[in-house]
Amino acid sequence: METDFIAWLVSRLPADQRLEVPPGDDAAVLRPPAHRRTVVTVDMLMEGTDFVLGPDCSARAIGHKALAVSLSDLAAMGARPEAAVVAVALPRHGGDTLGREIEVGIEALAAEHGVTLAGGDTNAWDGPLVISTTAIGSVRPGAAWRRDGARAGDVLVVTGAFGGSLLGRHLAVVPRVREAIFIAEHFAVHAAIDCSDGLSLDLSRMMAASGTCGVVRLADVPIHADARRRAARDGGTALDHALGDGEDFELILAMPPEAASALVAAAGTAPLDLPITMIGTVAAGTGLVAEAPDGGRSPLEPRGYVHAFDS
Amino acid sequence: METDFIAWLVSRLPADQRLEVPPGDDAAVLRPPAHRRTVVTVDMLMEGTDFVLGPDCSARAIGHKALAVSLSDLAAMGARPEAAVVAVALPRHGGDTLGREIEVGIEALAAEHGVTLAGGDTNAWDGPLVISTTAIGSVRPGAAWRRDGARAGDVLVVTGAFGGSLLGRHLAVVPRVREAIFIAEHFAVHAAIDCSDGLSLDLSRMMAASGTCGVVRLADVPIHADARRRAARDGGTALDHALGDGEDFELILAMPPEAASALVAAAGTAPLDLPITMIGTVAAGTGLVAEAPDGGRSPLEPRGYVHAFDS
Repeated sequence: METDFIAWLVSRLPADQRLEVPPGDDAAVLRPPAHRRTVVTVDMLMEGTDFVLGPDCSARAIGHKALAVSLSDLAAMGARPEAAVVAVALPRHGGDTLGREIEVGIEALAAEHGVTLAGGDTNAWDGPLVISTTAIGSVRPGAAWRRDGARAGDVLVVTGAFGGSLLGRHLAVVPRVREAIFIAEHFAVHAAIDCSDGLSLDLSRMMAASGTCGVVRLADVPIHADARRRAARDGGTALDHALGDGEDFELILAMPPEAASALVAAAGTAPLDLPITMIGTVAAGTGLVAEAPDGGRSPLEPRGYVHAFDS
Repeated sequence: METDFIAWLVSRLPADQRLEVPPGDDAAVLRPPAHRRTVVTVDMLMEGTDFVLGPDCSARAIGHKALAVSLSDLAAMGARPEAAVVAVALPRHGGDTLGREIEVGIEALAAEHGVTLAGGDTNAWDGPLVISTTAIGSVRPGAAWRRDGARAGDVLVVTGAFGGSLLGRHLAVVPRVREAIFIAEHFAVHAAIDCSDGLSLDLSRMMAASGTCGVVRLADVPIHADARRRAARDGGTALDHALGDGEDFELILAMPPEAASALVAAAGTAPLDLPITMIGTVAAGTGLVAEAPDGGRSPLEPRGYVHAFDS
């Protein structure tokens, strides 16, 4: 671990920060919260694959996104974020400025959620920008949301609205951190996942892990205004975009019916000041099924972003 | 966090592994050891900058090294490794095979040190291999070694021998994990750092952090046989290579004189079956000073690898 990256950031932390050792040492020392489990997740974003730096995508935005996707992973576990470390490969030319802007984006989001930036590793190379974020959170023992816990009879619930994220929300990611913590404290959740690769694809992953079938009432899927804009501009239906675009970073939850009803009723006031919608149910079986308004059912093919190799 | 990378590895962990949630979820859940602090470090290695894949450098070796450098950072804190997560950007063509080989290298080292591979993020792109490793360890509260704790009157002690690591030890890194844990349990250590960028450079960092001066008896610096080979082949003295080559990943310690003597006396039997050498002392002042056998002193310029940006 290197001494420079985020050291100035860490140096600005309030005195009650959880670091026991000053920034710039070989590793950071954190005080884990008592009686809680540690939750850890890592993500990597690469220039040219996950983003293209330019007028529409600043280095600051990439810093924000890099931390946001990791915080979204913690939210999908019902976990409270505690700390993060960041490794970057910066282009040799101009990389120091780039690194500084990335830090600003990371710092703002970390401050918003009380995340301790515990250190990092800054590197220069003759390649494009690569940034890897590790986020560390905590949950009560046994309370972590999993994706394999859905049961037949559960109700499928989502936060927010879906589709068209490429029009800007794919960068200005709002991880559902506060919402997840609040829901975990007050409502029974059997399974959870965040929507990174596509609503239908991520839901299908939850169903596969749980050994259950997801029945989606297509008319109830909350469609983002961006999905309608993309449909008008690029073709496809707004529903298609909602089901397959991905990078919405909303929560997809499987809950007992009474918990789902209570959660939907609680929506609209902080910290749940966002739409919360029941989009279907969990049934015995496998895969996804689409349910039309007349009750007719047909298979629903999962769509979304798949990381692929040439063979 | 993705579902594939290391999932097969994690699936092979013994039943008492510290994972509370099955592999492939959004994040891993770990049981932190009671009454200990959490230590976290992140490192990134990039193809073409930190290594060149080829006959002398396999993907497996890079997997080993990526985890080894992070474990070395934990060792430099006197910490016990607990878990690791790994993010990789793999070349789209052939990346799946490459990823598999990297995993083998990581797995072997993790198993050797009881490290839980808690997950990862696997990505394909049209760029060179990038691998980022986050290692999580633990220490007793207040017991983490720091680099800013050296005091005038301390003795400087090193494990192993230095120089010429490019002849192979830069890949076959042996992190001093067991040695650090044993030393931390049995001997007083005021400051520690691992030698990644160069013995003189890393020592100068410890002295700068501590506000002290390092007096190095040049005749006592343990010179690796590889340093002599490199001197014979590429010029420079073997001592120059020992002081500046870096990537030795040995421990550099500042200790009270009696603790240093006891540690040196303990060397030679497991887990300290390696040379342990007093190379100098800590004095009031700043920077580094070289002491010749006749007692004559002169400034010692720190040398080693510095990560640089074009301005």
